[in-house]
Amino acid sequence: MSYRMLLLGAGRSASSLINYLLHYAPQENWQLTVADVNPAHIAPVLAAHAQYARAVAFDIQNEARLEELVQEADLVISMLPALFHPLVARACVQYKRHLATASYVSEPIRELDLDAQQAGITLLMECGLDPGLDHMSAMQVIDEVRAQGGHIKSFKSYCGGLLAPDSEGENPWKYKFTWNPRNVVLAGQGTAKFKQNGHLRFIPYQQLFVQTEQIAVPGYGLFEGYANRDSLSYRAPYGLEDIPTILRGTLRQPGYCGGWSALVKLGLTDDSGPLGNPAEMSWKELMSAYLPTAPTAQESVPELVAKHLGLAQNSADMQRLHWLGLFTDEPVGLANATPAQLLEHLLTRKWRLEPTDRDMIVMQHLFEYELEGEYYVHTSSLVVLGDDSTHTAMAKTVGLPLGMAVRRLARGEVQQRGVVIPTQASLYTPILAELAEDFNIRFEEEKAIQAKRTVVSKAGA
Amino acid sequence: MSYRMLLLGAGRSASSLINYLLHYAPQENWQLTVADVNPAHIAPVLAAHAQYARAVAFDIQNEARLEELVQEADLVISMLPALFHPLVARACVQYKRHLATASYVSEPIRELDLDAQQAGITLLMECGLDPGLDHMSAMQVIDEVRAQGGHIKSFKSYCGGLLAPDSEGENPWKYKFTWNPRNVVLAGQGTAKFKQNGHLRFIPYQQLFVQTEQIAVPGYGLFEGYANRDSLSYRAPYGLEDIPTILRGTLRQPGYCGGWSALVKLGLTDDSGPLGNPAEMSWKELMSAYLPTAPTAQESVPELVAKHLGLAQNSADMQRLHWLGLFTDEPVGLANATPAQLLEHLLTRKWRLEPTDRDMIVMQHLFEYELEGEYYVHTSSLVVLGDDSTHTAMAKTVGLPLGMAVRRLARGEVQQRGVVIPTQASLYTPILAELAEDFNIRFEEEKAIQAKRTVVSKAGA
Repeated sequence: MSYRMLLLGAGRSASSLINYLLHYAPQENWQLTVADVNPAHIAPVLAAHAQYARAVAFDIQNEARLEELVQEADLVISMLPALFHPLVARACVQYKRHLATASYVSEPIRELDLDAQQAGITLLMECGLDPGLDHMSAMQVIDEVRAQGGHIKSFKSYCGGLLAPDSEGENPWKYKFTWNPRNVVLAGQGTAKFKQNGHLRFIPYQQLFVQTEQIAVPGYGLFEGYANRDSLSYRAPYGLEDIPTILRGTLRQPGYCGGWSALVKLGLTDDSGPLGNPAEMSWKELMSAYLPTAPTAQESVPELVAKHLGLAQNSADMQRLHWLGLFTDEPVGLANATPAQLLEHLLTRKWRLEPTDRDMIVMQHLFEYELEGEYYVHTSSLVVLGDDSTHTAMAKTVGLPLGMAVRRLARGEVQQRGVVIPTQASLYTPILAELAEDFNIRFEEEKAIQAKRTVVSKAGA
Repeated sequence: MSYRMLLLGAGRSASSLINYLLHYAPQENWQLTVADVNPAHIAPVLAAHAQYARAVAFDIQNEARLEELVQEADLVISMLPALFHPLVARACVQYKRHLATASYVSEPIRELDLDAQQAGITLLMECGLDPGLDHMSAMQVIDEVRAQGGHIKSFKSYCGGLLAPDSEGENPWKYKFTWNPRNVVLAGQGTAKFKQNGHLRFIPYQQLFVQTEQIAVPGYGLFEGYANRDSLSYRAPYGLEDIPTILRGTLRQPGYCGGWSALVKLGLTDDSGPLGNPAEMSWKELMSAYLPTAPTAQESVPELVAKHLGLAQNSADMQRLHWLGLFTDEPVGLANATPAQLLEHLLTRKWRLEPTDRDMIVMQHLFEYELEGEYYVHTSSLVVLGDDSTHTAMAKTVGLPLGMAVRRLARGEVQQRGVVIPTQASLYTPILAELAEDFNIRFEEEKAIQAKRTVVSKAGA
């Protein structure tokens, strides 16, 4: 009898996952059902694999249909937006079906842990890129250091969904949307929390894109990293409770953070309430409204904006604002919107990935550890380039680890039940090997002894 | 037969309202029921008025009890938190009872307008201080200017719940909580919207306490005003749709806004997520966590904070931070709280109104209008002092206008049905007169012709 696999959601980011599942379906004896709100766009892809794959219409609002589909499957994969996962997970627990996703373990998912264990099923979460590949690659180094008897003193980890250098063109932000635009516009709102040399550190939103770090990636030069909202929550799952330094961050090309900081300071990322503006309002008028003094014949809007932000007229950051069209007569295009909605509306046009554009995933872990009296610095770096705007690096790095995790789960090679994330060697070792061997997705590892480092002061911090 | 009046909620801010209702109950032939979650504290006050007043236990969670109480009344007054008003208003519509509150017309209340009209009842909202007395006093001037044939060109209106000068003591903020502490801590988050000389103006939160205006109140000196979130929404109800300048703001004593701006910049007003801190963390440790560089033997936490904020060590703003105890070993006292929760917890102690403290309400409207070719400036100023920490200026200025509006409604002197706010002369004229005559709560009016003012450029804006 064949193993029945249900994939919920087949958006653009599922392309690599679907290819992977179709590739393995015949030899693993899978029957794959791809359920999507718009099955017409995926049906042609599956048509060539009709013996073991079919597309069906599915709307997550229809709970009866969800239960029906889950019952007809042995394993469920969800690529739906994360907010729907509790709904899907509850159906999986009820009908005793495994679930795999690339999304974070949210509180409602965590609450299903015991029920899932009792049902004898696995809710395999955080199996994409970030979260996913980050856990796998970091834990491989951490477990290796531990096996040698070393102690990790510092762990910084950065990831960015970026644009391949050959697709940057004249865009001074060197960035386009390869992921949910709204999440990019609202990124970092709140207070970033991490630990540095034994000290707890908080960065409020207004400072986040100012207090950046420089990151060097072999072969790709320098990047900027800004701190993610909660780095501290990574201590427990990685077994790094007492680590003096832990930081998770997001990578951007140099200059992006300065330009974004200007947008934050202007107030354009606020999403708390609508402005009451007409859709015909021009971007220049909007900018003018943010100025403490009205523009005059002597001082134009961009001149006053530069002054207000403390930037030079011809600074690179002002050029980034000019490039976005913030000082043009172009209408903002949305009536009574929040500043963040207007900015997203603009950026969705300015930062649209063209069919020929290629994206790029960059991930880097920086470890410092003490071993037999020496202080080591270990850097793991990964760069993955997209093929085009459909077969993106994002789709590969999210979909392939998930597909590989699913394959192990389907084969019965994952023994853990309940809510599981891929921090165990039994899961990450074969997946990292398969990514490297079959897809050339591999981390470059660099290791050096740091001379003259005073280990005691770090350890005591 | 007597007229049955139901008051829901009898907290501290209801003291003046209850006194007013008890005073008029015998001559107006009212039977007053005061319903509170803790009726024991109000029962002694009512005991002396047992023929026409009683206290009953009431929990807003108990909807059946709410319906029962509403049915037994002819008119309902709600001093409950504003979020419960839709619930109360729906019961009033259902049982055809009038309702009066001191809260804003929220969207759910607005939606009841037609139903209330059909039920033949009045939902009399915004009858306290702000909203309430602000509408009444501003509309009196606006209607007067219009009756003379004048055109209002500018309307700025400020209100502040402050501390009486003789209660300021050594507190460099010259402020204590006379109102919901949480609302004070979160005040202004979002984007402030107003109009200035024909230009739409937006101020993002980070700039709000920097871009203040100076306000002079006769006999009380200078105050600082910062813009409220939405000044534009006042145009329609006041009939000022095309006014070139409209601004509503909040008053504080000079220096408060600079100090508060430092707290905002540090990140202490962020309420978006918990910090994961232990309750034992000291305030100095918390401050240290917000610094980009760790304190050393050479540079203390307050020195680094001053540098981080661009303030001089001995500046008045730094003294305000010192006075709050931000650099002490005092524990923050709440585990895993948001920065705003920690700040509120601290301020609730530091800014607690002592029994002998007196509060002070300050309201000022600044009108500019054109009349017969002349340009006039008209200022209406009100200062009300509290008697003590129970009979506060806040309780008087919220409760008395509401009580007076209720008296008119009970006597059948309010003809309008549906959702009503006190912008009509038939309502504000007798109330403003009663406030002045019986309680000496009166606006001081100043009027001057502004010389050499170019009227045309304003009117054309």
